[in-house]
Amino acid sequence: MRVLAVAVSALLACAGAQAQTLIPPAAIQTAVQLREQALADRTGWQVVESLTTEVGPRMAGSEADARAVAWAEEKFVQLGFDRVWTEPVTFPKWERRSESARVVGAFAQPLQITALGGSPGGQIEAEVVRFADLAALQAAPAGSLAGKIAFVDYRMLAARDGSGYGPGSAVRSKGPSEAIRKGAIGFVMRSAGTDSHRVPHTGITRFDEGLTPIPAAALSVPDADQLSRLLERGPVQLALALDCGWDGQYTSHNVIGEITGSQRPEEVVVIGGHLDSWDLGTGAVDDGAGVAITMAAGHLIGKLPTAPKRTIRVVAFANEEQGLWGGKVYAANRAGAGELERQVIAAESDFGAGRIYAFNTGSPDPAGSRAATAQIAEVLAPLGIELAADKGGPGPDISPLAAIGGAWGWLAQDGSDYFHLHHTADDTLDKIDPAALAQNVAAYTVFAWLAAQAEGDFGTTPKNP
Amino acid sequence: MRVLAVAVSALLACAGAQAQTLIPPAAIQTAVQLREQALADRTGWQVVESLTTEVGPRMAGSEADARAVAWAEEKFVQLGFDRVWTEPVTFPKWERRSESARVVGAFAQPLQITALGGSPGGQIEAEVVRFADLAALQAAPAGSLAGKIAFVDYRMLAARDGSGYGPGSAVRSKGPSEAIRKGAIGFVMRSAGTDSHRVPHTGITRFDEGLTPIPAAALSVPDADQLSRLLERGPVQLALALDCGWDGQYTSHNVIGEITGSQRPEEVVVIGGHLDSWDLGTGAVDDGAGVAITMAAGHLIGKLPTAPKRTIRVVAFANEEQGLWGGKVYAANRAGAGELERQVIAAESDFGAGRIYAFNTGSPDPAGSRAATAQIAEVLAPLGIELAADKGGPGPDISPLAAIGGAWGWLAQDGSDYFHLHHTADDTLDKIDPAALAQNVAAYTVFAWLAAQAEGDFGTTPKNP
Repeated sequence: MRVLAVAVSALLACAGAQAQTLIPPAAIQTAVQLREQALADRTGWQVVESLTTEVGPRMAGSEADARAVAWAEEKFVQLGFDRVWTEPVTFPKWERRSESARVVGAFAQPLQITALGGSPGGQIEAEVVRFADLAALQAAPAGSLAGKIAFVDYRMLAARDGSGYGPGSAVRSKGPSEAIRKGAIGFVMRSAGTDSHRVPHTGITRFDEGLTPIPAAALSVPDADQLSRLLERGPVQLALALDCGWDGQYTSHNVIGEITGSQRPEEVVVIGGHLDSWDLGTGAVDDGAGVAITMAAGHLIGKLPTAPKRTIRVVAFANEEQGLWGGKVYAANRAGAGELERQVIAAESDFGAGRIYAFNTGSPDPAGSRAATAQIAEVLAPLGIELAADKGGPGPDISPLAAIGGAWGWLAQDGSDYFHLHHTADDTLDKIDPAALAQNVAAYTVFAWLAAQAEGDFGTTPKNP
Repeated sequence: MRVLAVAVSALLACAGAQAQTLIPPAAIQTAVQLREQALADRTGWQVVESLTTEVGPRMAGSEADARAVAWAEEKFVQLGFDRVWTEPVTFPKWERRSESARVVGAFAQPLQITALGGSPGGQIEAEVVRFADLAALQAAPAGSLAGKIAFVDYRMLAARDGSGYGPGSAVRSKGPSEAIRKGAIGFVMRSAGTDSHRVPHTGITRFDEGLTPIPAAALSVPDADQLSRLLERGPVQLALALDCGWDGQYTSHNVIGEITGSQRPEEVVVIGGHLDSWDLGTGAVDDGAGVAITMAAGHLIGKLPTAPKRTIRVVAFANEEQGLWGGKVYAANRAGAGELERQVIAAESDFGAGRIYAFNTGSPDPAGSRAATAQIAEVLAPLGIELAADKGGPGPDISPLAAIGGAWGWLAQDGSDYFHLHHTADDTLDKIDPAALAQNVAAYTVFAWLAAQAEGDFGTTPKNP
């Protein structure tokens, strides 16, 4: 504990005279025990195995969405959470029925594609015009793609922190609307992915107001290579057939399990993942892992002989994939009920199942929690996790809460291979390393427990909407 | 050359007094030059890029089969072969139109499958009975699978020499007939593959005489894992819908390019690969690579200032995948025309695009060619290729020729990852390493050139049919 004391003293010196949130030594000792126990525990694996096997793919609004909600309620009960409840989340339902693409003409052949979430259906056959990236499409003259299919061939790069996804996903979110503005009747893109398999990457797209949506799809990486090679030989005519689209509203649920606090039960430490997945895989790394990691963390804290001071709340968020619907409802409901101040800190695991390598917290008023953050980091350090001051941010479903003043925790996972699998058929259980998953559970258990025991807050400061 | 001379002397001593085929020193010198030239040459890559891009998938009997034949004829001409010809190969045509599978009931979800080649179509829904391997299915009591779907869950092992494929492919070739004998109405198997992607492995199956064929399909490896986990939870009902089947006869062609020999043009050294592929991928490693390696080898020999003594014959065989149809026709036609004795030696590249690590030759009368084989091996050695005496055998399309007495060459490729890709959608150009491909071209160039220059034969001895 000596090293820790020195570190905290230094932080206090830096922070000046402001009162610091601190974690009592007894809580630290328990955290060390929890950490070692979690590393040897199989609960996280069992939970993700159960979800991906028994429910499988669970796209928001699908038949399996309701089964996933029922699964989560039952799993929380099985794992000993003492309060299990749901909150409704309503959103438009998008369906994928069938999809195919083929090159026609002299080099006729099928190409593997998948519709982007939100795409309308349609059958078109047109010449393909390739753009190296989104900027090149944006630079095309208005009307220049009249009657054509735009193809954005941007190759996403792999990175531990997933930083390649920003430009990769921008092609998906902005490309179709840009293509429409240039006159295109269809849009295809090289998948926002880093693998080399015939598994196209889906994901939500949106069409800007006032535009008439066009069929939009992603090619697998080898198929984008192929289309690019074909285009080197001359004009390519592509036939695209998508049967998909929006169909009414659907109400799913955020599913919530709690380990009730013994001293300040109304104050909650929120951890979670999202319960929905895309339909192509079984949602193992996105985001069965996040649900399992945080359910297991809550379970391990719940098994302690003494309850945490604050409530540990594990949230399995509804429909993250199509627009953070569950996260937005969670934040709006807390704000609406005047509970925002009681959201002590919140963290979502939604970046796969790779080992956590960095940790930080943040809030509108972070100065007072720097010492407690350093204390948590000291307990995380043996897991190979470094304190990354001034880095990170809230997970996707936490971002609506953070936007209105909620404090967030950031436990950064190694995402080097996350985009090999993300939003593809290949997102299946075999891609999860049980030891790495247990390291995640250990980290979330330590984080949630220590945040619940901290004397003082993490800087949650409700903002006026 | 001193080392070589010593090695050959030793072999001559071992072989006793029998006359040995020998390769003249000038031919060895040219082979060394060809080897280095081939390593720096891009022809092999350009050929496989062209075939997989411009023709793409080319299942025997499909529309693309005819395009592949036209492509091969044109490519031989482009590459300077001085005689290009075809021989017709007629076979039954099998078509794949659509295929799907889903678990029904409480754990409803789709599973990724592909029909086995030769399977009939059909829509069935039945309980699945799992067997760990083919022996377990064979041991089931007759009639015990009445109304059920048999599932053979045998996990194929990866090996450099592909030795895992024997038991893996036996499940595919024998499993469906065994299942029928036990009363099953459908058959599914864990793919004979070593990957972990959602790409099921197809491949031909056959139904024993007198049995009524049943729908037969392979699950991808992760889907077999999933089905196995579901079965641990209780009975599983599977709906299988295959639209596929035999539909008449089709005539394709072996496509043959020759570099005509200057001294004994009627004697041929045969190298080749098979032109057809399965329909799921673009047939890069199976067997665009083999066609490209051997076309490039013939091309490099053809560019020499002096023609080889014997003819170099490169054969792009028709329909290997569904029963060695092209190889059988090639052998039958040579026998029918009394040309069998003139087939000096034959080798097929059909095990991917990994580096060659071993070499040998064989024939009904191998003693006389041991010295020449050792001479060839000496020139191959700098490529990382070892002489593997008493090992190897003819490639698939060479085996009918070998069965009637033809000598064969064996250039063993590293197949450690071949069964990650074999017969799947993932068999695409990006999986080929251009440097490894060039090493293959160098080896085939050396082999074909030296066999054409050898004084004496390699033991071809026509057998009475």
